[in-house]
Amino acid sequence: MLSHNAEPGSSELRLSVELDSDEALRLLGSVSLGRIVFTQHALPAVRPVTHVLDDGNIVIRTHDGAALTSRAQQADGRGVVVAYEADAIDPDTHLGWSVVVTGYARPVTDPHEVARYQKLLRPRLHRTMDHTVVIRPDLVTGTRLTETGGAGDVVRPRPEDPPAE
Amino acid sequence: MLSHNAEPGSSELRLSVELDSDEALRLLGSVSLGRIVFTQHALPAVRPVTHVLDDGNIVIRTHDGAALTSRAQQADGRGVVVAYEADAIDPDTHLGWSVVVTGYARPVTDPHEVARYQKLLRPRLHRTMDHTVVIRPDLVTGTRLTETGGAGDVVRPRPEDPPAE
Repeated sequence: MLSHNAEPGSSELRLSVELDSDEALRLLGSVSLGRIVFTQHALPAVRPVTHVLDDGNIVIRTHDGAALTSRAQQADGRGVVVAYEADAIDPDTHLGWSVVVTGYARPVTDPHEVARYQKLLRPRLHRTMDHTVVIRPDLVTGTRLTETGGAGDVVRPRPEDPPAE
Repeated sequence: MLSHNAEPGSSELRLSVELDSDEALRLLGSVSLGRIVFTQHALPAVRPVTHVLDDGNIVIRTHDGAALTSRAQQADGRGVVVAYEADAIDPDTHLGWSVVVTGYARPVTDPHEVARYQKLLRPRLHRTMDHTVVIRPDLVTGTRLTETGGAGDVVRPRPEDPPAE
């Protein structure tokens, strides 16, 4: 879905493009840093971590493992629901993309699996990050903000956005 | 607080430095992008937004305003608890800093206040971002990950970190 973001008094026109989930996951996999979002002591919590994509799952290592992996939070056996965000946004123009994944996080406990992920996750940076966590994406959303696209782009205003003056 | 992160078999030594809240807020104010973390439909949610610091408060504009500003979520009149994260982390070396603020978010409704913040918040990028939200920091934490510091640095291992081999 596309929408125009035009500012009154400005000739700039920006295009906010919703990405499909395949493209969103591909972009997330193209970077190694993201932010895990979870609940800790009933408060929203967020930490930057590194990730790899493995067979469609997001694998991270963290030392906030307790909040993500405690048995108390996994009463139903499926894990805890988390959000995971990655982006590449230009600090000056603010053009770029962002992807948000929501899904269940579960600790990785199998020693072989842990060892395999440790190799994938740049171990030199994670001396004290003792918990390996896998997030299975249930909902993947993404947005790309670009300058006005080429003539071939189809532009459909989003229902919730008023038309640009 | 400082801790060494040394990887077995690596000569690299990294220093994880906890920042005091003043320094953390200063760093957050040195960038214009961050991520607002909140609860939406009982699920963790996160969105990249732009921010300004104003008299120690974080001011953002968002079109996810409903989740942040609905009366139902503000029963106690203090607003909703959110987390706000900003970072500047090198994608290759993973050195840099990150700051996480936790506090109450409240919608800005006074027209003069809204107008003032719209000027501060690069309005050209936010045509459709109709909600202005102020976050009052209650808890500010920050971490800087650097290469091994100079000889003058005091290094104290964190109690929870085992000493490096």
